[in-house]
Amino acid sequence: MDFSIRAANMEDCKDIARMIMELAEYENQTDIVKVTQKDLEQDGFSKNPFFHGIIAEVAEQHRTQDGHTKIGYALYFYSYSWLGRGIYMEDLYVMPEFRGKGIGKALMSKVAQLGLAAGCSNLKFTVLDWNKPSVDFYVSQGCSDITANFGFHCMRCEGEALEHLAQP
Amino acid sequence: MDFSIRAANMEDCKDIARMIMELAEYENQTDIVKVTQKDLEQDGFSKNPFFHGIIAEVAEQHRTQDGHTKIGYALYFYSYSWLGRGIYMEDLYVMPEFRGKGIGKALMSKVAQLGLAAGCSNLKFTVLDWNKPSVDFYVSQGCSDITANFGFHCMRCEGEALEHLAQP
Repeated sequence: MDFSIRAANMEDCKDIARMIMELAEYENQTDIVKVTQKDLEQDGFSKNPFFHGIIAEVAEQHRTQDGHTKIGYALYFYSYSWLGRGIYMEDLYVMPEFRGKGIGKALMSKVAQLGLAAGCSNLKFTVLDWNKPSVDFYVSQGCSDITANFGFHCMRCEGEALEHLAQP
Repeated sequence: MDFSIRAANMEDCKDIARMIMELAEYENQTDIVKVTQKDLEQDGFSKNPFFHGIIAEVAEQHRTQDGHTKIGYALYFYSYSWLGRGIYMEDLYVMPEFRGKGIGKALMSKVAQLGLAAGCSNLKFTVLDWNKPSVDFYVSQGCSDITANFGFHCMRCEGEALEHLAQP
């Protein structure tokens, strides 16, 4: 099946919001999703965007029962560390009926290309440890688990704790 | 002891590079540091910077034996997730002889303020699990360990694996 990978634009935000919810359902995490289509439009496609996106698209004849042709996406932003410039992949998703066709690999490959083109030495992302198919896929691509190997833990501060921390 | 926290500028890169090496020594990771003073100047202080920084500074009379008055720093960049806009703190460091005076807390507080001012709902960072004093400090500030609590693992792809991944 032919598919294409291209930069996301503001008109894709409705489908990105839909696929974020699909991914969140898969991860049993719909309750933590706060971003809406409108947030995505504002945060990704105005001056100084907080993220960038790419879309995987199939031809009309392969559209889903619900009429979707935008069937996968990845979000990314640039990062920095002792290794220098990096690219961070926040989400990588392909709709279930389109899996196993190399579309996820192609999306991730595109993020890697964009990173290298911007002078990045590394691509980072997080994965849920119980999501074995994803972990296996990433390891098969030569990615290393720096939590398991070096003990890096992800920490987060939000809500009242963040407000309190910001008090001088 | 009085100290001030201010935005970093290009002239601070020499001291940031020095303190990155000090922090790497503390974490037994000097071999992984790739960034130089020149990289920091280019990557943080040109158009579309990859990171921002803040500096903790003390008055001349409190300078170190080696003559340093820039005695702590934090690096950060903006991020994105299902929670919306976020701020990511890459490094937080205070020179050993200036610890226990609230300088680390003040640096982290400033990052939180900058994040809230930019509409961020969360502050993220990573910590090495064996660095108990740091983990305890962060937890005392209301941060949660999303690796321990939800199983988020940090993954990284670099070098030949990244080059290979980018092949179409």
